[in-house]
Amino acid sequence: MSLARALVEAYWEAAEARDWDRFASILSADVVYESPQSRERVTGRDAYLRYNVEGFTDDWHLVLERVVAEDRAAVSWITVTRGDGERQTGVCFFELGADDLIARLADFWPERYEVPGSRAHLVERD
Amino acid sequence: MSLARALVEAYWEAAEARDWDRFASILSADVVYESPQSRERVTGRDAYLRYNVEGFTDDWHLVLERVVAEDRAAVSWITVTRGDGERQTGVCFFELGADDLIARLADFWPERYEVPGSRAHLVERD
Repeated sequence: MSLARALVEAYWEAAEARDWDRFASILSADVVYESPQSRERVTGRDAYLRYNVEGFTDDWHLVLERVVAEDRAAVSWITVTRGDGERQTGVCFFELGADDLIARLADFWPERYEVPGSRAHLVERD
Repeated sequence: MSLARALVEAYWEAAEARDWDRFASILSADVVYESPQSRERVTGRDAYLRYNVEGFTDDWHLVLERVVAEDRAAVSWITVTRGDGERQTGVCFFELGADDLIARLADFWPERYEVPGSRAHLVERD
């Protein structure tokens, strides 16, 4: 198994378990998290731990749907069910650092949308 | 280079060039495209070609930002600039079929959003 895949699987397991010590142990000290959609950036393991522990306090749960991994980079596709029952997809790009830990994350949260009428005749719907 | 990476790079090159013959030659005859956000599904090479050619007729251009690839699966991150100047991120999961062509796509188009106030103190902004 690629190192990146192993770390990404451990990352999401630790997050789901709220095992924040284990979660922190998977991160580089100078990890950088970015959410390109919201232009959020969090720099450093301590700040990123706080972001996760204090920023998302509802009773969310996640399922890891898919990981595509090279040795030093990976992408995860997760489904999060929030405390209010809403389900959301998350897609995250991970890169490893020289310390063989997760050093960079680029995180996307695509929302549902309606098919534009201009192409509705070209698709099937679930 | 992994086969999946080569095909995904060729896929986006052909799309940007509007080289639809080349684009079609990279797809399995029974390719399935899905957009989980909009619940769109397109089945088969001919229908998927029509979806691309007829569904997106403005003067869009794309830049391939990143590919993470295994041998038989890959994820791309692209930036599309639309005819009206708006830029949008696209993330697509690809899987190859037994014919060594692209057989499945799961395509995400995350939109910009504002940082919730509840975590604004935990992040930097660009």
